[in-house]
Amino acid sequence: MRALVYHGPGQISWDTVADPAIEDPADAVVRVDATTVCGTDLHILHGDLPEVKPGTVLGHEAVGEVLSVGREVHSVTPGDQVIVSSVSACGRCQFCRHSLFGQCQGGGGWILGNLINGTQAEFVRVPFADHSTRRWPGALAIEDAVLLAEVLPTANEVGVRNGHVGPGDTVVVVGAGPVGLAAVAVARLYSPRRIIVVDLSTARLEAALRVGADAAELPGTMIAELSEGPGADVVIEASGEPEGFALCTRSVRTGGHIAIIGTHGKPVTLHLESLWRKNLMISTGQVDTSSTPWLLELVRYGRLHVSQLVTHTLALDRMEEAYEVFAGGPTTGALKVMLQRE
Amino acid sequence: MRALVYHGPGQISWDTVADPAIEDPADAVVRVDATTVCGTDLHILHGDLPEVKPGTVLGHEAVGEVLSVGREVHSVTPGDQVIVSSVSACGRCQFCRHSLFGQCQGGGGWILGNLINGTQAEFVRVPFADHSTRRWPGALAIEDAVLLAEVLPTANEVGVRNGHVGPGDTVVVVGAGPVGLAAVAVARLYSPRRIIVVDLSTARLEAALRVGADAAELPGTMIAELSEGPGADVVIEASGEPEGFALCTRSVRTGGHIAIIGTHGKPVTLHLESLWRKNLMISTGQVDTSSTPWLLELVRYGRLHVSQLVTHTLALDRMEEAYEVFAGGPTTGALKVMLQRE
Repeated sequence: MRALVYHGPGQISWDTVADPAIEDPADAVVRVDATTVCGTDLHILHGDLPEVKPGTVLGHEAVGEVLSVGREVHSVTPGDQVIVSSVSACGRCQFCRHSLFGQCQGGGGWILGNLINGTQAEFVRVPFADHSTRRWPGALAIEDAVLLAEVLPTANEVGVRNGHVGPGDTVVVVGAGPVGLAAVAVARLYSPRRIIVVDLSTARLEAALRVGADAAELPGTMIAELSEGPGADVVIEASGEPEGFALCTRSVRTGGHIAIIGTHGKPVTLHLESLWRKNLMISTGQVDTSSTPWLLELVRYGRLHVSQLVTHTLALDRMEEAYEVFAGGPTTGALKVMLQRE
Repeated sequence: MRALVYHGPGQISWDTVADPAIEDPADAVVRVDATTVCGTDLHILHGDLPEVKPGTVLGHEAVGEVLSVGREVHSVTPGDQVIVSSVSACGRCQFCRHSLFGQCQGGGGWILGNLINGTQAEFVRVPFADHSTRRWPGALAIEDAVLLAEVLPTANEVGVRNGHVGPGDTVVVVGAGPVGLAAVAVARLYSPRRIIVVDLSTARLEAALRVGADAAELPGTMIAELSEGPGADVVIEASGEPEGFALCTRSVRTGGHIAIIGTHGKPVTLHLESLWRKNLMISTGQVDTSSTPWLLELVRYGRLHVSQLVTHTLALDRMEEAYEVFAGGPTTGALKVMLQRE
């Protein structure tokens, strides 16, 4: 098959590799009908995740059709349309038994396109298929389905839920990439007073207004606006940059929450000399994808509109170009780039 | 009267100053029967809190007798024995109305020995006396009463409660000063599996065992012990040092809590490049002293034994010596130094 192979920092190419096959009785092999590029893939490309070895097929989000399953798979059968979650889950370890699938100690967690070959390929082997795939109802657009593989559950679990967004809150989202903007859409479900999106890119600030932010501002403007009141109740860090984190601690109110979504590649400075007395709650986390079924129903019944986060659709074999389009998002306003089988 | 006056970084002396008087209808003037030196006073002395102006009388913990009250004071009358809380509370602002007295926006918060003259004196003016003093039941030892002014509520509210200590937890307390050790005593109320206290001082580690820690270890030993399991469920940072904070992030388990009690004078490094996916909850906070009545009952009915945290008692006019004894604690094992009226 053809697949996007990582060859070390800065090096990827669309290569011919061996087809995946069932290796374990809990595996499924899925034909990839749609996949995407994630900000974390760019971090891998920058060398921020040294655990990713050269030769690995990247990608951890997909929708597609089940082609074959191992003898221990009971939830899906060949011919099923499924969402492949970014997180694989053994379903048996102590973490999985508490729905903390992202922390699976039984060989799962975030492994696709990280420790094993991923979804940016014609076919993908999905370990622990019972706990790592979800049926994709026909009524759902493929754009929505692919966002349910990681973007939406991450925005919800690590951003909105960890940040305790509630009615009447002032919410700041730092970073207007796909996950930040998905957090805007999910935060809306909780009736906040005001959602302010911050980014350095004018093109992405325009996108933020289109997905429903009340305001989309450059950092200086946001800080000036918030300085007239107590600050934000919840700040969601979705930039993955040390400057983004610094902006969070400057904009949160006393007693507020900072929920860190972003994949970070560098340490940050935490100014405890002033923050020790500010009653903050700072959370970090990796998605569990435990909320995917809930989000799926919200999308299906028209309560959550996110398909516009997919701004570009390309044929699957234009994967290398997709990385360029996605990486150029801060300049062009491109958000999620979907690769689709023709 | 005589009082301990701050004259700038590194400079304090026991001076003659004007007696305090009622300045506002909500004030009380209290005769100080006992006061103490706090780790935060040492931070002031090191210049870490530039808001403290030369000429300020230090100290924010006391017990004593009410001498006079303003016309708006209704809870205490002259002759009452009271605990003077470290936090003054207007009782009317939005923060006070949610019991967040430490964040009072009505002129209170931690102001004693910080923005106004404090308790290391023969007499002290206590603003907002209705919300800033609590009757001291005669049955309570003076050592216990003085610990209720700040040490115990801080250990409870900012450490144990923010850290969500619960039955079966492995709890690490970094820093075996008075507040860290009070956190050990309060954490015990929740039946944790094991409490490990960490400090660089052998003398203070011995004290930790005396107040009920299951283990008292040097950092390297603790890290080695924890590395055999998933890490600590809750880590309480009570050292106030960047190295202490680093130890917290190294010892907490995935999905655990870090509760920062310490007054910090320097920024710390937060290693988000590895911690972003560790599902941590990090809290900071200033005490509200809202839990003082609950703690008082626990002490009174023999459920909480902390009076041994007072290792030294000196006459009030030996205040300068008390700073030296307290600052020498890491070498000598001295914990709380109480100054008592003769």
